[in-house]
Amino acid sequence: MSETPLVNPEVANMVGDWRGYVEAKLGFRNHWYPVRFSKELEEGSVEVIKLLGEQLLLKRIDGKVYAMRDRCLHRGVPLSQKVECYSKDTITCWYHGYTYRFQTGELVNILAAPDSRLIGRRKITTYPVQEAKGLIFVFLGDEDMVHDLSCDVPPGFLDDDVMILGKHRVVNSNWRLGAENGFDSLHIFIHKDSTLRHFRTFNFPLGHTCLPGAVTLHEDADGPKGVTDDFSKHHAVWEGIIDGEVVIRGPRSENVSGTSASAGTSIWLPGVLKVDSFPVAGTTQFEWYVPIDEGTHLYVQTVGSKVSSEEDKNRFEDLYERILLPHGLDGFNADDIWAREVTEPFYADDFGWVDEMLCETDSTLLEWRRVASRHGRGIQTLENLR
Amino acid sequence: MSETPLVNPEVANMVGDWRGYVEAKLGFRNHWYPVRFSKELEEGSVEVIKLLGEQLLLKRIDGKVYAMRDRCLHRGVPLSQKVECYSKDTITCWYHGYTYRFQTGELVNILAAPDSRLIGRRKITTYPVQEAKGLIFVFLGDEDMVHDLSCDVPPGFLDDDVMILGKHRVVNSNWRLGAENGFDSLHIFIHKDSTLRHFRTFNFPLGHTCLPGAVTLHEDADGPKGVTDDFSKHHAVWEGIIDGEVVIRGPRSENVSGTSASAGTSIWLPGVLKVDSFPVAGTTQFEWYVPIDEGTHLYVQTVGSKVSSEEDKNRFEDLYERILLPHGLDGFNADDIWAREVTEPFYADDFGWVDEMLCETDSTLLEWRRVASRHGRGIQTLENLR
Amino acid sequence: MSETPLVNPEVANMVGDWRGYVEAKLGFRNHWYPVRFSKELEEGSVEVIKLLGEQLLLKRIDGKVYAMRDRCLHRGVPLSQKVECYSKDTITCWYHGYTYRFQTGELVNILAAPDSRLIGRRKITTYPVQEAKGLIFVFLGDEDMVHDLSCDVPPGFLDDDVMILGKHRVVNSNWRLGAENGFDSLHIFIHKDSTLRHFRTFNFPLGHTCLPGAVTLHEDADGPKGVTDDFSKHHAVWEGIIDGEVVIRGPRSENVSGTSASAGTSIWLPGVLKVDSFPVAGTTQFEWYVPIDEGTHLYVQTVGSKVSSEEDKNRFEDLYERILLPHGLDGFNADDIWAREVTEPFYADDFGWVDEMLCETDSTLLEWRRVASRHGRGIQTLENLR
Repeated sequence: MSETPLVNPEVANMVGDWRGYVEAKLGFRNHWYPVRFSKELEEGSVEVIKLLGEQLLLKRIDGKVYAMRDRCLHRGVPLSQKVECYSKDTITCWYHGYTYRFQTGELVNILAAPDSRLIGRRKITTYPVQEAKGLIFVFLGDEDMVHDLSCDVPPGFLDDDVMILGKHRVVNSNWRLGAENGFDSLHIFIHKDSTLRHFRTFNFPLGHTCLPGAVTLHEDADGPKGVTDDFSKHHAVWEGIIDGEVVIRGPRSENVSGTSASAGTSIWLPGVLKVDSFPVAGTTQFEWYVPIDEGTHLYVQTVGSKVSSEEDKNRFEDLYERILLPHGLDGFNADDIWAREVTEPFYADDFGWVDEMLCETDSTLLEWRRVASRHGRGIQTLENLR
Repeated sequence: MSETPLVNPEVANMVGDWRGYVEAKLGFRNHWYPVRFSKELEEGSVEVIKLLGEQLLLKRIDGKVYAMRDRCLHRGVPLSQKVECYSKDTITCWYHGYTYRFQTGELVNILAAPDSRLIGRRKITTYPVQEAKGLIFVFLGDEDMVHDLSCDVPPGFLDDDVMILGKHRVVNSNWRLGAENGFDSLHIFIHKDSTLRHFRTFNFPLGHTCLPGAVTLHEDADGPKGVTDDFSKHHAVWEGIIDGEVVIRGPRSENVSGTSASAGTSIWLPGVLKVDSFPVAGTTQFEWYVPIDEGTHLYVQTVGSKVSSEEDKNRFEDLYERILLPHGLDGFNADDIWAREVTEPFYADDFGWVDEMLCETDSTLLEWRRVASRHGRGIQTLENLR
Repeated sequence: MSETPLVNPEVANMVGDWRGYVEAKLGFRNHWYPVRFSKELEEGSVEVIKLLGEQLLLKRIDGKVYAMRDRCLHRGVPLSQKVECYSKDTITCWYHGYTYRFQTGELVNILAAPDSRLIGRRKITTYPVQEAKGLIFVFLGDEDMVHDLSCDVPPGFLDDDVMILGKHRVVNSNWRLGAENGFDSLHIFIHKDSTLRHFRTFNFPLGHTCLPGAVTLHEDADGPKGVTDDFSKHHAVWEGIIDGEVVIRGPRSENVSGTSASAGTSIWLPGVLKVDSFPVAGTTQFEWYVPIDEGTHLYVQTVGSKVSSEEDKNRFEDLYERILLPHGLDGFNADDIWAREVTEPFYADDFGWVDEMLCETDSTLLEWRRVASRHGRGIQTLENLR
């Protein structure tokens, strides 16, 4: 591994004040990441996930979820290859009987060698787990670095009156191409044909021009760290002109009258986007780009809405099933997933970060890269995977 | 990329006066290469090709063909992933609307950000294109290095009275193994069972012995650079003898009386073979081994014949369909394609160039390697691909 | 190849007195390896095998088997790609007619260039072959290092009154994970559900505790080198306890009364295991983990039994077909194959050798690693493959 560094040092040396971001090919360590919805993990069942390159086991015991490295200390095999749980709190390696307690990681016995002095003296790595808003969050990092979940989610996500619905899927690109695709205001160009526009109160333009004052950095010591791009301070672009002729127009739906967004987007560490008034007015999209490994991320797509009664909840669930899911998370975002996966090869050998040619509006992306480099709480390295 | 050089330097340092040839794993830059037949590219249509590791777009506009790098300057995505041509002369990137003019490569607009100062100030790489004898040739190299097409094709190919017919296919070996398979006079051993022999005026021997004076180098300043091997100065080998017994004889067809070739073969930069009196008397085979990437080449197979009337043309087309194509380009050359692909693994890590054990007759190959090293106009490198 | 060493030097430098074992990723050179059963290679037929990364041809000529590198000296192609044997003793390369004598490797002719001075002056590599107990053994090493076959097989295997039956199959793990899986007394834990226990005179425990005096090293100058682990000096473990409760017991069959093994296992260079009283009393399992390449080994599974009459032989063959093969070599060992293949990824980049966490009983494995490092007669390297 010393032979093949995770990130080409030649590239890392060239990017100046966003070096940390380039180095975080496997994600930022010491942050909270959503990995599954709570309803996906029943009492007593075991689930395998991969997060920042590490394979983990999740188990729900007496209602609480625990996360443990899925690799036996002894000979490095995945415990999940053949799950053997002989007690509620433990998992036993199928190969030689090394038995670990989920709550602590402690090696509580070796069934094939019960007199070993290793017993009680060794621990497998475990990670803190917290559930919120129907999502299971894992703190992938070191014990002494744990901080509050509220520092790693966008403002508003944890609000008591907000109800969250969503889905997740695997995307074949690095997580950063997910984050930049989402935050990039120009990529609206790819959504020209989205059916979502029929359900909105304003149309999609072809592009945006970012004016001074649109971008705000969030770097308060106690809160989440991120960047906001305020679309009300953009000029929307409605006509595409080539050699003097209008060749394309921002698509308009008959029943949609507005022509400008009043809202904006914000991106937050460790890689989560908040889109105001989206997919439709009155809802907010929160979506995570959770690093699985160098070339894959878990796309956790959620929508939030304020609800104050059972009736509100039912109405939101109905809206989600009829419109937000098919036309938003599935339809609109399918374009984004496709774009990220097509962009991946250019950045896969790292040289994309120095060979790209950004334009003025992309300065928002540079702000994000810098904020992430300044406030990321640790770079996940190949050594962390050993 | 600085970590993994294209060619193992240990090998390049060992081969002396044909080092350039060993380094040209991705081909020689600054030469003309045939990439498609003219009839394959209709007016207005776009085609994607790969040449010396670079992915290119071809488009025919008002009859003329243009070639442009198929990678948006902005975020490096292939324009071809979703072709959006909003005007005859341009292509627009599907992601953010970067729009390029085919004739010049100029960035004429960014549809999602039309006020960017990049517009009119940036260019995507374009390459000169020329059509001749029904083939589309691309000059893969730098603008100031363009030279005449006649310097990159074998003598006779461009003659006014020569008619060219042919086909192309992808072969899974480095281009040099194609060139050497074609020029190597001993490889006739693999064609023992070819049905082509029934249509020829002389039989195929088992092998050849190269005598002094058979080889001529072509290094005139103004002409194409290459090597000719004159078969009339070889001893043909008709019997294979093991431990004193004749175990195999060069195959003879009843209706074929001659036993020796009066002709020869020649190989030319940037990797094109001319075989006289082949596949049958009165025709000449011209074939290119066009580098696609390290392990693949485009095998462009053509046959030429002098024609002086419409009747001649029809007769040649008929000969091509009945005999030259099925028994020559498809039948006879199938053995060659197979041989190149089987040879590829030995040379794939470059050590084959120093671990091979050539015999005397192979000195023709060494002459070719030296001529190519002296006159190749540039080595295609991994940096060229960025 | 100088760029990518076979074994990570950082790891090799860390393992102290078993460095040679870690370096022998491709196996130990200069030893005898079984590669096929004698009955698999008929007179005159040619077989292709891969051994320690080298591809070889086997041919039986006048009853005797010969082994030759399957790569033409000329352009490195496999002779086996299209076998052309024009005489009993030779093979001719399909490409240019290079012809080699199986018995000596001598280049006896080049059919396409019969006047070359290379003829009679060059040799392809050949290896000594010996047949014993129905197996074909190849000495993969240098001519001056040949030693007696008896030094490379476990004691008893060659005894006159021992009859050997068996099979072989390819396993997708490095050969050392095969050897360690076999010799490791704790891995009995994975065989809890094996049907083989119904045919034995004692049950399988869950594990073992290795007591002082169980391990013996075999390092006599003239004999095979290895390590014996005597199970009669172990405590067998019959109950698995977690948090004070018995959660699992060593499985017992009704018709099997014994509870302890009187026998043991031993592991020998170059990677062959002997298991006493196994699969059933009165038989001995001998099994080889023959390196094919870095990630694959040929698992040669044999069982021996003393026979003194035709009736004995028939009885043993019958036992083999009814019980030993289905319940032992196929059933019981299927668990082992699965375990080796699942362990492979952790050791594939070599770091497993330093990141593993062995327990006290595994000290037998460390003894084996040390004995192998002291007595292995050569490390197979990437240079050997060129």
